[in-house]
Amino acid sequence: MSNRLIAHLAHLEVFTPKPDESLRFYTDVLGLEETERDGQSVYLRAWGEWSHHSLKLTEGPQPGLAHIGWRAGSPEDLDVAVARLEERDAGEGWLESSVGHGPAFRCRSPGGQLHELFWEEDRYVPPPGMESPYPNRPQRYVPRGVAPRQIDHVTVMAADPYGDAEWFRDTLGFRFTEYIVVDEESDVTLFAMVTNNEKSHDLGLILDRSPVPGRIHHFAWWVDTRADLLRAADTLLNAGVPIEFGPGRHGMGEQDYLYVREPGGLRVEVNTGGYRLYTPDWETKRWVPSQGPTVFYKNLEIPESLFEAFPPAEAAAEQETAKDWTPASIP
Amino acid sequence: MSNRLIAHLAHLEVFTPKPDESLRFYTDVLGLEETERDGQSVYLRAWGEWSHHSLKLTEGPQPGLAHIGWRAGSPEDLDVAVARLEERDAGEGWLESSVGHGPAFRCRSPGGQLHELFWEEDRYVPPPGMESPYPNRPQRYVPRGVAPRQIDHVTVMAADPYGDAEWFRDTLGFRFTEYIVVDEESDVTLFAMVTNNEKSHDLGLILDRSPVPGRIHHFAWWVDTRADLLRAADTLLNAGVPIEFGPGRHGMGEQDYLYVREPGGLRVEVNTGGYRLYTPDWETKRWVPSQGPTVFYKNLEIPESLFEAFPPAEAAAEQETAKDWTPASIP
Amino acid sequence: MSNRLIAHLAHLEVFTPKPDESLRFYTDVLGLEETERDGQSVYLRAWGEWSHHSLKLTEGPQPGLAHIGWRAGSPEDLDVAVARLEERDAGEGWLESSVGHGPAFRCRSPGGQLHELFWEEDRYVPPPGMESPYPNRPQRYVPRGVAPRQIDHVTVMAADPYGDAEWFRDTLGFRFTEYIVVDEESDVTLFAMVTNNEKSHDLGLILDRSPVPGRIHHFAWWVDTRADLLRAADTLLNAGVPIEFGPGRHGMGEQDYLYVREPGGLRVEVNTGGYRLYTPDWETKRWVPSQGPTVFYKNLEIPESLFEAFPPAEAAAEQETAKDWTPASIP
Amino acid sequence: MSNRLIAHLAHLEVFTPKPDESLRFYTDVLGLEETERDGQSVYLRAWGEWSHHSLKLTEGPQPGLAHIGWRAGSPEDLDVAVARLEERDAGEGWLESSVGHGPAFRCRSPGGQLHELFWEEDRYVPPPGMESPYPNRPQRYVPRGVAPRQIDHVTVMAADPYGDAEWFRDTLGFRFTEYIVVDEESDVTLFAMVTNNEKSHDLGLILDRSPVPGRIHHFAWWVDTRADLLRAADTLLNAGVPIEFGPGRHGMGEQDYLYVREPGGLRVEVNTGGYRLYTPDWETKRWVPSQGPTVFYKNLEIPESLFEAFPPAEAAAEQETAKDWTPASIP
Repeated sequence: MSNRLIAHLAHLEVFTPKPDESLRFYTDVLGLEETERDGQSVYLRAWGEWSHHSLKLTEGPQPGLAHIGWRAGSPEDLDVAVARLEERDAGEGWLESSVGHGPAFRCRSPGGQLHELFWEEDRYVPPPGMESPYPNRPQRYVPRGVAPRQIDHVTVMAADPYGDAEWFRDTLGFRFTEYIVVDEESDVTLFAMVTNNEKSHDLGLILDRSPVPGRIHHFAWWVDTRADLLRAADTLLNAGVPIEFGPGRHGMGEQDYLYVREPGGLRVEVNTGGYRLYTPDWETKRWVPSQGPTVFYKNLEIPESLFEAFPPAEAAAEQETAKDWTPASIP
Repeated sequence: MSNRLIAHLAHLEVFTPKPDESLRFYTDVLGLEETERDGQSVYLRAWGEWSHHSLKLTEGPQPGLAHIGWRAGSPEDLDVAVARLEERDAGEGWLESSVGHGPAFRCRSPGGQLHELFWEEDRYVPPPGMESPYPNRPQRYVPRGVAPRQIDHVTVMAADPYGDAEWFRDTLGFRFTEYIVVDEESDVTLFAMVTNNEKSHDLGLILDRSPVPGRIHHFAWWVDTRADLLRAADTLLNAGVPIEFGPGRHGMGEQDYLYVREPGGLRVEVNTGGYRLYTPDWETKRWVPSQGPTVFYKNLEIPESLFEAFPPAEAAAEQETAKDWTPASIP
Repeated sequence: MSNRLIAHLAHLEVFTPKPDESLRFYTDVLGLEETERDGQSVYLRAWGEWSHHSLKLTEGPQPGLAHIGWRAGSPEDLDVAVARLEERDAGEGWLESSVGHGPAFRCRSPGGQLHELFWEEDRYVPPPGMESPYPNRPQRYVPRGVAPRQIDHVTVMAADPYGDAEWFRDTLGFRFTEYIVVDEESDVTLFAMVTNNEKSHDLGLILDRSPVPGRIHHFAWWVDTRADLLRAADTLLNAGVPIEFGPGRHGMGEQDYLYVREPGGLRVEVNTGGYRLYTPDWETKRWVPSQGPTVFYKNLEIPESLFEAFPPAEAAAEQETAKDWTPASIP
Repeated sequence: MSNRLIAHLAHLEVFTPKPDESLRFYTDVLGLEETERDGQSVYLRAWGEWSHHSLKLTEGPQPGLAHIGWRAGSPEDLDVAVARLEERDAGEGWLESSVGHGPAFRCRSPGGQLHELFWEEDRYVPPPGMESPYPNRPQRYVPRGVAPRQIDHVTVMAADPYGDAEWFRDTLGFRFTEYIVVDEESDVTLFAMVTNNEKSHDLGLILDRSPVPGRIHHFAWWVDTRADLLRAADTLLNAGVPIEFGPGRHGMGEQDYLYVREPGGLRVEVNTGGYRLYTPDWETKRWVPSQGPTVFYKNLEIPESLFEAFPPAEAAAEQETAKDWTPASIP
């Protein structure tokens, strides 16, 4: 069993075709803090995060994932990870210069997603008046909207979720926590979870039946309590944001969830709870649908819309044949 | 920066001079499950734990700590830890045979506490009818009393909490998260926290002004929510167990707490909440008393009784001179 | 506008064809306290209730409602209520002797349910050792299973829920708080709520499309917090009791809910939350289905099974033609 | 036993010597909504309230209470109340015209507080865009700061809390729920609670050892859950508002509390929880200090500052001799 190499999910870069509206959603309704703007991108973070940003919102023709940023556990861990990636021919070289962090090694996971691994990063520095009264918090707590504490996880699409989970385990030291098969007889995995920490997953993998590589299903923001999650649902609904699914509790991971779509189309989760996994030789758990993997209470079907991923398969096809899209500027 | 070596706090062995009453407290009021009895000891675990036991309750002349069990992250991690301990001359050799786990390397931390590090362990196997309906839980959930989910941390006494924290960091790979000094001018550390996981601490270190080595201050059990903590307080009070301090929230670690004494005299905490620390290069936070380290709300003094540790200094002195105590049997 | 006459929902008498199993459900899983047994009935109450019982569980051939007991606000209020009932020819005379309360006036609401109104009642007296440490609680809190604090409401079937709501308002002084129509165009009411207190309803009325009079849909038990509701769901599931619907939040009344079936077949709700209505001239609120009356989050359909009421229409028909059922004894 | 006459606590008028800062506290930090300004007063309400205002903030030389507004249960109830007040010579005549409500009958309770009883009131009408998506809520929920749902209660000072409680019971139909004596031997009441609803009190009465009549101790705002209360504490602290006492739970009433001082000096509570009292012949509960009346957990002393009431006794004395204070305008 290998030691872990990744410390945590550091940030996502996502595309939105409606940058102004998406930005207003993330700042006014979700309640993230803006750190910086650069070109077609805005850098955002949650109030409990110590680093420069956990979300890079970039204008794009379709909602989708640009890349996933992972912070290594140490410079040495980064070296080990890079060596393993190169050995498997998954590396795409170093990106020397980024906003908010140092040199990043780029790689592509089997599902087609782009990842960046890095060690050096910029710390968030609160502006005058926003210093926390507590030394163990990065900034003053002035809640706005949902006000999540930090980013939690990202869930992406893959042609072979089980195989991808093994890839993350064997290449990058993730633990493979749980998976569910399509039906009781099948060995086809519908959803798999891998993690670097005590939570059930910081990366989820869902079966993609489309041929489009590198798609994202959703990403999630953590609130401290289940009461905060219900308050989030109320806040979102009253801001005119429909709740696609939830609030509820998953069986897999035992986490409380709700899902909405941000104005650009991407699915955003707010979550909390879940077990805390410390067992170093945790045996990957296998679920069948009747055991309540999606819904702990075993009494709900997943809505059809929840099978959509981003970019939508049709849109992605069109886009391939029309590469002339030009972004307007984010104000 | 070194990788972590310890996966998690695995178990405690504690002494009680009132074994029957203590056992009833841990099973009927706190709601632990009994796994096994052996000689003067009963092995107990919380419902959410996968291993054989997290508490070994042993009859003894005074309330106190027998040893702390830590599970290594891997066999290799155990080897590294043992090598480092021997290098620092802190090792006390291998214990080949234990109930519930494999060979354990014993060592003593600077504060005088006995620790055991091991890799192999027995998994809890639920008896017929107690299997969980969910593959990611070790047993059916049939709550009784407080019904914590798992052990959380232990806090011990030390002549030099800061130095001990450095020792755990440098020898065993703990992260040194936070500490508080006695007063604004002083460099004397009153309390220090170290951790192997996302939580602020699985080991706390409090300044011991007595000459008695190896004392314990309290140990803590985790419940899922703050509502569970308030329910725990209600349950404990109605069972005739006074609440020594709390429910409240600490500033350091931001965890919700309550403290009681079990019938044998030892202090037991129920806790929940807290931040989740993923930053690999976390800078140790320094607190001064005015910042609300003990009480997040900055409006309460610690009750005098909370400075007591176990065994009490006087009792320990007496005991030194009277080694003739013979345990009666636990029924 | 008339003053209220009813103080609160006092108790229900319900039938179960499986008295042993139902009793075990109510005591071991739901966690009610048994007060007394008499003939084919067991009297039960929740730990927070001051009166002799809030549930009379009686053996019967089908799950169903025997009667609903209401406590008047005062002897004078009872007189006024009786006079109004007699004026409307709804009275069925006085029942002089009952277990747990004094003389009760019986009446039948338009939907066919039997009600009893009374003033005098027996107080619960805790047995030695079960006295509360607090003067404002009726007994010591020793939680078992779900451990609700008190009965909350009962929901019954009616051919004309809107008309019945008006009847309860005009005859017995209930407030008519909210109702929902079958569809946007229709004036047919699907569900109506009336109340004697700050909560949205202590009596619910659902459209019955069957010809069977006097049916019940469910009755509900109150827990203090939403966390308690989730804990209740976990407890119920692990006791092998499927969750028919929930946990979730209703739009009407804004209360959190979950529904299960007890072994005798009857639907039991656990609920909490909700607004607190103090406005004396509250205007009855009209809902249409698109506004989220059942599910606050506007994203779930009611499961088909939730339209079933008790006794089932077919069973009730059969029973009419076979009156020879003889109850066995409750042990 | 008399029927109730008062529907609910409708509003308070309080004085502040720092009108700008107080207003910012109530709107930005506590999160109330402004309805109207008139002369030296600003009218405010919580988001869950249906009426024009629940707080009238008026500039004054000292923090204190101007008057308490109670809404009668009906026009007839108002007539009964007025007749009883005049019979006891406690009436001060009708105030024909007020902002937000119709004619109000003024009276003075034994403790010297001014009360207004009225029936007619203006309903809050949400401005365009602020209509609720739910018919059973008065406005869209757009939380800001603590965002309480509604006013809960007011606690005032009295030379004889027990006698005043009887006065409110006998004159205005309140129920006298609980009281505590100064010590076990004494018949001197330190605190008494009376109510018009299911909650333990909408009016509290504390022993005033000063000669100043008509003082206020604090008033309270309701949040839905205990998690909201902890969030409120975090929000207040980070806004630079010290928490005078709490968060905690009272034994009397079993309500969760926290207390702060608004910039004008007045004590403001945020509260939630508590039992729900429906028993019409509730027997007034007597407490002695050892039973945990103030703190359910029986382990905290009340801070000395919590005995202060408003206006401070010294300030009130000074003010008597200097009546020349002229208010500046609220912007």
